[in-house]
Amino acid sequence: MTTTEPAVDFGTVAALAAQLRVDSIRSSTSAGSGHPTSSMSAADLLAVLITRHLRYDWDQPHSPVNDHLIFSKGHASPLLYSVFKATGVVSDEELLNGYRRFGQRLEGHPTPVLPWVDVATGSLGQGLPDGVGVALAGKYLDRLPYRVWVLCGDSELAEGSIWEAVDKASYYQLSNLIAIADINRLGQRGETDLGWNLEEYARRFAAFGARVLTVDGHDLAAIDQAMTAAADTSGGQPAVILARTIKGSGFPEVENEDGWHGKPLPRDMAERAIAGLGGVRGIVVRGPRPEPAQPGPVPEKPTTVAPQPDTGSTPSVEPPRYEVGQKVATRKAYGDALVALGARDDRIVVLDGEVSNSTYASEFAHAFPDRYFEMFIAEQQLVAAATGIAVRGYRTFASTFAAFFTRACDFIRMAAISGVDLRLSGSHAGVEIGADGPSQMALEDLAIMRAVHGSTVLYPSDGTSTVALVEAMAGLPGISYLRTTRGGYAGLYPAGESFPVGGSKLVRSGENDQVTLVGAGVTLHEALRAAEILHTEGIAARVIDCYCVKPVDTQTLASAAEATGGRVVVAEDHHPEGGLGSAVADALLAVGQQNLHVTHLAVREMPGSGSGEELLAWAGIDADHIAAAARKVAGG
Amino acid sequence: MTTTEPAVDFGTVAALAAQLRVDSIRSSTSAGSGHPTSSMSAADLLAVLITRHLRYDWDQPHSPVNDHLIFSKGHASPLLYSVFKATGVVSDEELLNGYRRFGQRLEGHPTPVLPWVDVATGSLGQGLPDGVGVALAGKYLDRLPYRVWVLCGDSELAEGSIWEAVDKASYYQLSNLIAIADINRLGQRGETDLGWNLEEYARRFAAFGARVLTVDGHDLAAIDQAMTAAADTSGGQPAVILARTIKGSGFPEVENEDGWHGKPLPRDMAERAIAGLGGVRGIVVRGPRPEPAQPGPVPEKPTTVAPQPDTGSTPSVEPPRYEVGQKVATRKAYGDALVALGARDDRIVVLDGEVSNSTYASEFAHAFPDRYFEMFIAEQQLVAAATGIAVRGYRTFASTFAAFFTRACDFIRMAAISGVDLRLSGSHAGVEIGADGPSQMALEDLAIMRAVHGSTVLYPSDGTSTVALVEAMAGLPGISYLRTTRGGYAGLYPAGESFPVGGSKLVRSGENDQVTLVGAGVTLHEALRAAEILHTEGIAARVIDCYCVKPVDTQTLASAAEATGGRVVVAEDHHPEGGLGSAVADALLAVGQQNLHVTHLAVREMPGSGSGEELLAWAGIDADHIAAAARKVAGG
Repeated sequence: MTTTEPAVDFGTVAALAAQLRVDSIRSSTSAGSGHPTSSMSAADLLAVLITRHLRYDWDQPHSPVNDHLIFSKGHASPLLYSVFKATGVVSDEELLNGYRRFGQRLEGHPTPVLPWVDVATGSLGQGLPDGVGVALAGKYLDRLPYRVWVLCGDSELAEGSIWEAVDKASYYQLSNLIAIADINRLGQRGETDLGWNLEEYARRFAAFGARVLTVDGHDLAAIDQAMTAAADTSGGQPAVILARTIKGSGFPEVENEDGWHGKPLPRDMAERAIAGLGGVRGIVVRGPRPEPAQPGPVPEKPTTVAPQPDTGSTPSVEPPRYEVGQKVATRKAYGDALVALGARDDRIVVLDGEVSNSTYASEFAHAFPDRYFEMFIAEQQLVAAATGIAVRGYRTFASTFAAFFTRACDFIRMAAISGVDLRLSGSHAGVEIGADGPSQMALEDLAIMRAVHGSTVLYPSDGTSTVALVEAMAGLPGISYLRTTRGGYAGLYPAGESFPVGGSKLVRSGENDQVTLVGAGVTLHEALRAAEILHTEGIAARVIDCYCVKPVDTQTLASAAEATGGRVVVAEDHHPEGGLGSAVADALLAVGQQNLHVTHLAVREMPGSGSGEELLAWAGIDADHIAAAARKVAGG
Repeated sequence: MTTTEPAVDFGTVAALAAQLRVDSIRSSTSAGSGHPTSSMSAADLLAVLITRHLRYDWDQPHSPVNDHLIFSKGHASPLLYSVFKATGVVSDEELLNGYRRFGQRLEGHPTPVLPWVDVATGSLGQGLPDGVGVALAGKYLDRLPYRVWVLCGDSELAEGSIWEAVDKASYYQLSNLIAIADINRLGQRGETDLGWNLEEYARRFAAFGARVLTVDGHDLAAIDQAMTAAADTSGGQPAVILARTIKGSGFPEVENEDGWHGKPLPRDMAERAIAGLGGVRGIVVRGPRPEPAQPGPVPEKPTTVAPQPDTGSTPSVEPPRYEVGQKVATRKAYGDALVALGARDDRIVVLDGEVSNSTYASEFAHAFPDRYFEMFIAEQQLVAAATGIAVRGYRTFASTFAAFFTRACDFIRMAAISGVDLRLSGSHAGVEIGADGPSQMALEDLAIMRAVHGSTVLYPSDGTSTVALVEAMAGLPGISYLRTTRGGYAGLYPAGESFPVGGSKLVRSGENDQVTLVGAGVTLHEALRAAEILHTEGIAARVIDCYCVKPVDTQTLASAAEATGGRVVVAEDHHPEGGLGSAVADALLAVGQQNLHVTHLAVREMPGSGSGEELLAWAGIDADHIAAAARKVAGG
């Protein structure tokens, strides 16, 4: 599997380890910030890994057969960038003058602006979950023999997301995943939870199904043996190398000392440290390169798809079609649309958090079980797995209840920094869900998703618009979010109608409209009913379907406001802050629209249980309340 | 410790278990939704618990000596409410006609609108972490012998937050915490990750430091023995009772059958089930009551506070004072203010996520180690522990980097539903942090926190305003959030100045102001510099310190807009959506302010590393850009 060149000898590895320490010190001292001591503890681990185990063609970072290297402890960026210098892909000059500087690519924590970095890290406990995603792709989709090596810190092992990751790695038998835990005992402000209690870490990882190898993280030969053993992918378990290390290892003045986290060495100390480590070196070394490989057979997956009668028919590549007036829940249309997408494009991959029969991701699961991953009730790992699979070029869709994506908020934020394309579908949004009560009502999701950098936020009202928007999502860059609704509502649009991202629909308008009603999803149906009520009273209302909440259709909104004397009523099934009303307000103010009289209807109190209708009325966002607001703003 | 009345006999317990099943079926069938089968699996567990182990005075739910009962599997609400009927605090009539109905208190998932409910559950994996908070309060603060019993589902054991909870329960030796895991094998859409593999669950809990008792969850005597053993708090470990149960237990037609999650039994099946279970019963039964108790001695805590030289002085109850012009970081002022608060009020409790030396929660930790809890890198548990401690009436402050509160977003959302008062301080916000890069920059936090129901969002710019706002937070209801800044900036306000919540400060104004500049935190300093620049050009600018982002000071904003011809420039170190600019836009539109020309400066691209100054300039939110925007809007 590897090239047959002789392995780098341990003398060179030792010199390289010293170089990595020296360069970690030099880069951080030159930048005036950074984490040299957290880098030095793992220098021996990385020296052995990159010379003797990581199969990587540094000249072709996007080669599909390369191993992957993820620094889950992203603050050890001095070490990672020193590795890049040691492999010759980053110059010493860049390391010294680029690190942590404005406009440079060697950022404080690694991001994929560097071609050798898969995912942004720096929010702890995310690199390993992301690595599970890459390993899932490697084993079940690419079916290539690459391995995923993840360097973890010990502080981050307190994050629950780490245990979601090990659980899923073990469930999916990801023997291609190897976590290297750098147990240096010291966190930012003192000793970690478990300190150097490697036995306890070992018990935990083993209990979660990992193969554990414990090693002195400064014994090169022992590390080498452990990595050889860990890289044996013949078993069915992910491997964890628990390395007992010393923070600041290599410079006795700071070794194992508290108070040196995230601090560069002052120049005088740096000079002493570098001298003690044998001075500046310029070793350039390459480890094993991967051999070309073809995808292997599709492996069996643990059974996760509930048995369903085989209909015997092949899924159609044609998007589903719904008639005007036909009742369908947008979540159901999401599932239907996914199947058609999946039939057309074998890079579509779907994941769900154990609610696929509610989000209708189940339809895809039944049609394409090989491209469906059940993540159980672990929303952080759900988003991380989608991120990791996206790293390998797949078009991932992840779904759960909209309320529960808030569990993965930090992962979505980091996915945006990683620059991956990720498609999220949150079902059961708003008070419309009814009897289940507030814990299940997403009332903050639009605000959260709008605030994600570069995101697209979509909120369809019927089957046809859902299908069009799901199809659009497949080609969208960055994070896109689809908000779907529990209940079924009558179709508004004929099959095949187009819904460009950034657009909106004028669903009702006339020459003498007195007021503009803006809705999306369930409130669009209420706005249309309100317009009917108003019509009987002689008030003409224009109605806009704001199916794209971000980017919002400023032009249509401004024109409608202009045409209706600035009188606008916005209704949304969401808290008043940061959602649809906010998008409309921002847009109208940004273009300097004048003479505005905007009424914003939203969920302003804490809901309880009830029927959807009762709660829409209680919140003041149903047709009657929209009509009343319109009457008032129209002076009626 | 308990009353000496004889324990309820097993015959009665068995009849009660049947009643709980019958009532779970009746309530959900009558409501037309709910989770009867998930209730039936745990009916025997609850029947034994409430009759023979839970020490609870049902007539005094807020008695400090009561045990606590938390349904982490909140969807088993039919069972919980059936327990309430069985103890006589809820009538059969309410159970049948109130459950999941509009305007009623027996909501789809339990919330503290009921006096016997501590925290809202229904987002899985939160009840146990919350219970850790209650148990921390019991052991270290109340120092009372009550126990915390938490009923967990098996699906939720896949949530990482569960393992954060067990880790912390074990670290803090919470032998007063007993988790009862209802391992019924079936999740919503099929079998769980581990099914009935109780050995594997046992290994995991034991590895995380819990004392594990495995039991047949339908054997009353065995359950009783396990609960007796688990409730022995003499050891230093939390206990976990792993109960092998059958979903739908008691009605053979649905027992252990897939496809019955979250579905009420149709009326005909309900009738058969009820008949098979012996019909409707009206047993009212009370278990042991707690005896009065006085707080015990303060127990030793695992060392979590880094040693610090003892200054020998007692912390002052006087708030810290900063001079105008004195440079202090608002995060430092946060720590200083906490110490004074803590000296005045012994119900102030502080928690941090292993970054206390950065958030300055460390100052409180050193001054009042007995009221400080280190939560390590586990932000979900950080917020959950603060929530659970707040349940016991303490005034909790929790801090971490603002960016990492996104990790706990779902917990903050649920804390709002729980109605607890929770004070969060997020440090290191925005591009101002500089070299660490985007993973550490909160650029969505204002949007997220504003969208939380009933929240207060504060963003001070100097030491004096920070102190005033931290003091205000101590008395605020609901979720309050303080955004603090990394760098130190010159003080703007004299010591002792007042900063009412909902207010703002007109920090610069004149009669002929042509434009209003709105800033908060770091951008206020930039706005003031911009006003100086504009002044030299003959443009008079009014400057507003919008230190309270929610509720925003609509009146001052509207007056300023009115006075300056509607010309407003808002600058914020945050993404454009949902933050300060959005708050200002919403406020001005809500009051119908006319003739508006608003320019909104925010962070619109993905930042990298750099100095704070470089990045404020790059983002277009520094003094020069604010001045340029003001010039343009003023027609200059």
